[in-house]
Amino acid sequence: MKKFKLTLEYDGSAFCGWQRQENSLSVQQVVEEALKAFTQLPEITLYVAGRTDAGVHATGQVAHVELPTDWSAYKVQQATNAHLKSYKVSLLHVEEVPEDFHARFSATRRQYMYKIINRSAKLSLDQGYAWQVKAPLNTIKMQEAANHLLGKHDFSSFRTVHCQAKNPIRTLTRFDIHRQENLIEFWIEAPAFLHHQVRNMVGTLVNVGRGKWTPEYIQTILEKKDRQFAGPTAPPDGLYLTHVFY
Amino acid sequence: MKKFKLTLEYDGSAFCGWQRQENSLSVQQVVEEALKAFTQLPEITLYVAGRTDAGVHATGQVAHVELPTDWSAYKVQQATNAHLKSYKVSLLHVEEVPEDFHARFSATRRQYMYKIINRSAKLSLDQGYAWQVKAPLNTIKMQEAANHLLGKHDFSSFRTVHCQAKNPIRTLTRFDIHRQENLIEFWIEAPAFLHHQVRNMVGTLVNVGRGKWTPEYIQTILEKKDRQFAGPTAPPDGLYLTHVFY
Repeated sequence: MKKFKLTLEYDGSAFCGWQRQENSLSVQQVVEEALKAFTQLPEITLYVAGRTDAGVHATGQVAHVELPTDWSAYKVQQATNAHLKSYKVSLLHVEEVPEDFHARFSATRRQYMYKIINRSAKLSLDQGYAWQVKAPLNTIKMQEAANHLLGKHDFSSFRTVHCQAKNPIRTLTRFDIHRQENLIEFWIEAPAFLHHQVRNMVGTLVNVGRGKWTPEYIQTILEKKDRQFAGPTAPPDGLYLTHVFY
Repeated sequence: MKKFKLTLEYDGSAFCGWQRQENSLSVQQVVEEALKAFTQLPEITLYVAGRTDAGVHATGQVAHVELPTDWSAYKVQQATNAHLKSYKVSLLHVEEVPEDFHARFSATRRQYMYKIINRSAKLSLDQGYAWQVKAPLNTIKMQEAANHLLGKHDFSSFRTVHCQAKNPIRTLTRFDIHRQENLIEFWIEAPAFLHHQVRNMVGTLVNVGRGKWTPEYIQTILEKKDRQFAGPTAPPDGLYLTHVFY
């Protein structure tokens, strides 16, 4: 038995998200099917670092799989990619890992990037790959607001009501906002996130950026511990799972 | 009569190129149709700075159009974009220009960007938007080779046999190669280009980058003035018309 760590890139547009669902196509399903196709194993289960939602992309998702084979990591990568030809999913890297490695539980930090195009003209090249915000955004104020989110907080105001985590306390270790002309990138890191936390934080910062709220109001939102006080959930299109640290 | 300068972004994947063709959809056609739809004019002709080929993208294409109307530039932009909703084509900017402005003949310089992803795993997010080169590329050597192309030369070796320009002399004013991990960007500027010149130069530099040719061999290729001596034509997927200077 060998355990492999798979690093994946995918275009989330065509999928119902990472996790398998009845009647819709998930990233998990197409990767498991590809692995089954070349290993000829009847059953294969992938464990993943972060279950991305429908429409969310990845450039550095990580999953692990156990295979009762002698195949090299290189062979697993080549064969799986060959079977993924018709999908926008790629194995960027495969390596053999010790038995105690777990894609989800061994991860020490997750990194997401959120992309906004701040302009009035509709998107063409970035349609489905960024959130278009028409109102001018003040990124200085947004960074000020983001700084209030850094560190350890109860993020109840920033999680969806469907979030199943028992503990709403999370520790944000990075929240950098970069602007280059119309393109705004949010680089966000934490050991772990609540469900919809990144998208709810971004949606809230957009309200600050357009002048609806002051940066200090973030403090109030955190203290309320109530989803109703935060901003809208940013669309999945702009979200990328970029890296998982171990 | 008012003359408008239109700055366009488009995803070239779904089009046969800029120019109108029988039986296939061109960017020119969809923009002209959008303009006709809101102006109710029976005939409208766009003049463009650079006729991009099938599959080539643009983030800063420029065209001009004359309209016998009182509409403001803002109104022309809004109305045209509304009619372009179902296409990946956007008017980024519209401005009124003097009568003697011509998108093609007034242009003093064109800027293109060519994008290579240099990795062995197949592309997902960049499928159709970059050229995947699997062999490792030495970008230092490629930049050395590119420097031989800078300045005024007879570029006969770098144009397609179908190129209709009478004069093969062109003057390259910029050829910068940037690498960031797997991503390689070529930034290229000249007052004007021959047909397929950018893609043939990039294809040739890839032969240098993978060690098939020395950087100095570019000198020989230029002197031969014969297309057969240069490298392959890089695919359209990685090419972006990024800016037209006036």
